[in-house]
Amino acid sequence: MSLKTEIFEQPDVVENLLKSQMDAIIRIAKEIKKANVPYVHIAARGTSDNAGRYASYLWGAHNQMTVGLATPSLYSVYQQPPRLNGALVVGISQSGQSPDIVSVLHEARKQGCPTLAITNEKDSPLAKEADWVIDICAGEEKAVAATKTYTTELMVVAMLSAAMQDNFDQAFTELKKVPKWMKSVLKKDAEIEQIAQRYRFMDQCVVLGRGYNYATSFEWTIKLKELTYVVADGYSSADFRHGPIALVDRGFPVMVINPKGAVFEDMLTLVKKLREDHLAEVLVISNDQRALDLAQSAIAIPEDVPEWLSPLICIVPAQLFAYHLTEIKGYSTETPRWISKVTETK
Amino acid sequence: MSLKTEIFEQPDVVENLLKSQMDAIIRIAKEIKKANVPYVHIAARGTSDNAGRYASYLWGAHNQMTVGLATPSLYSVYQQPPRLNGALVVGISQSGQSPDIVSVLHEARKQGCPTLAITNEKDSPLAKEADWVIDICAGEEKAVAATKTYTTELMVVAMLSAAMQDNFDQAFTELKKVPKWMKSVLKKDAEIEQIAQRYRFMDQCVVLGRGYNYATSFEWTIKLKELTYVVADGYSSADFRHGPIALVDRGFPVMVINPKGAVFEDMLTLVKKLREDHLAEVLVISNDQRALDLAQSAIAIPEDVPEWLSPLICIVPAQLFAYHLTEIKGYSTETPRWISKVTETK
Repeated sequence: MSLKTEIFEQPDVVENLLKSQMDAIIRIAKEIKKANVPYVHIAARGTSDNAGRYASYLWGAHNQMTVGLATPSLYSVYQQPPRLNGALVVGISQSGQSPDIVSVLHEARKQGCPTLAITNEKDSPLAKEADWVIDICAGEEKAVAATKTYTTELMVVAMLSAAMQDNFDQAFTELKKVPKWMKSVLKKDAEIEQIAQRYRFMDQCVVLGRGYNYATSFEWTIKLKELTYVVADGYSSADFRHGPIALVDRGFPVMVINPKGAVFEDMLTLVKKLREDHLAEVLVISNDQRALDLAQSAIAIPEDVPEWLSPLICIVPAQLFAYHLTEIKGYSTETPRWISKVTETK
Repeated sequence: MSLKTEIFEQPDVVENLLKSQMDAIIRIAKEIKKANVPYVHIAARGTSDNAGRYASYLWGAHNQMTVGLATPSLYSVYQQPPRLNGALVVGISQSGQSPDIVSVLHEARKQGCPTLAITNEKDSPLAKEADWVIDICAGEEKAVAATKTYTTELMVVAMLSAAMQDNFDQAFTELKKVPKWMKSVLKKDAEIEQIAQRYRFMDQCVVLGRGYNYATSFEWTIKLKELTYVVADGYSSADFRHGPIALVDRGFPVMVINPKGAVFEDMLTLVKKLREDHLAEVLVISNDQRALDLAQSAIAIPEDVPEWLSPLICIVPAQLFAYHLTEIKGYSTETPRWISKVTETK
């Protein structure tokens, strides 16, 4: 039962990461600031790409850095890499193995750009291409579905963001509360198992999250797809309104991640409309009672989680939901069909 | 019946665009090259975002420009815009109205960055924020589902790419063939109507395309979602292998866009595996017989379409497929439920 064990290990691995890597990350953050790069270019796939999505919002909002996600095939298959013009190029990968991601950092180095690898394997091919390597210290992850390697990747992104700020005391104080918040959400395991019963016959859904939690919506869809085989489609509330909202009619299931924060009111307006006009079936993860009250299924996270760290907390009940739904549907939580732990793509 | 009319108008509007805007685009391309920007930042939503995806591959591969897609909520909702450091900031929008997209160009201007609007409304708020405006000249689009405004946006992206090259004679020779290729695909209307019958009871699918046609896969999913209410999930062959491939078991429908080109072999390997090992149901759009032979449903595009222009041609049968499937399922092709022509998001 590696998957459940690894979901429950998250408070400990995140705490260990905070303690063991804080000094290294502060040093790297200083050097990144000194490099004064024009923008940031992130290469990643799958779950790690969602850690990149989180970085694109957090480093944008808190560190004023413009972040773009790379199109790795330009480097690998097309072999027509663009001019990077001094960008900070970041590779995020649990295994550090995928040739397409390695090829982006290799090219960046050739062009003289500073490079950073965020990985669970500090001797991997990806790490070897990087000026700076941050070990996510997740320990071996046995389950095919990534959980603790996702939250530790998010934690590294958050620690880097904090460390790049001039005054990072408050940010670090908040970071240190992440393990406690995770533990408090994990206590809802039995409640979430009960909630998941209702979704036994769901075979499709949409998952909505905006801003920092755009990443959470995408990550939740991957867990649902690879474990429960539910066709789950992730959207920001804004993109969703530009067409795909047509999907949602009476009884269509919508999963919503909407903690307190800057995008809360916009998301709340959408969820209200989906419930009241479309008559949708809504599951909400939030720490604002107005959002929780709207849902047929409500999962509360701690009151005091700040928006910037909410993706680290909101994904935990989503992982538990996917885990229990997999068991309820009678599928394997350890060995999803057709995929293996390390995926190498060109 | 605006939708079908507009699908069939595409060869003419694209031809008109080529003739009427070529000089303006050559002039703007010269000025963009002179500006020597460190990277390109594109803001768009929905269908226009897919035109942005095409630009991120084409301008990367043919013009060596690094392109990133913006996260508009940082500018609008969070009001914490990143430093753009002289990037070329491009807004793509049919209506030019959506406040979040306008806010990105507004901020870019404030920061002194060069700005470009690609729009069907040259007096729109978006156009007013831009140094350069390119009119996609699609004429009024009455159907809610965008078709001719998508292909004209792609055409502008392609014309700009050609015009930014030192020697653009060959590229323009190929561009001028687009209307002819589109016409040849439109002749398959009755054949595609027949093929669509088979999908009457499909309620979910995945759509795969890589590189230049990553955009096509996403655009096809929007048409399927907003017209036929099929939950369609778009992927590159690489991202798909990192988890979501678990969805595909015996009989699961997979739509594939795989014309000849650099990513063809990689896609072919995946489609073979999906057919032979997963026993998937496969529809293929291609001009390579090896890909067409693999599929239960095959739609051929002209032999001589070059990969860089294939997104303009491959989307046409995909639009026709979505149109006919909508009729076959008994839904409205003109007024999809819950959405309207102009979507304004914050």
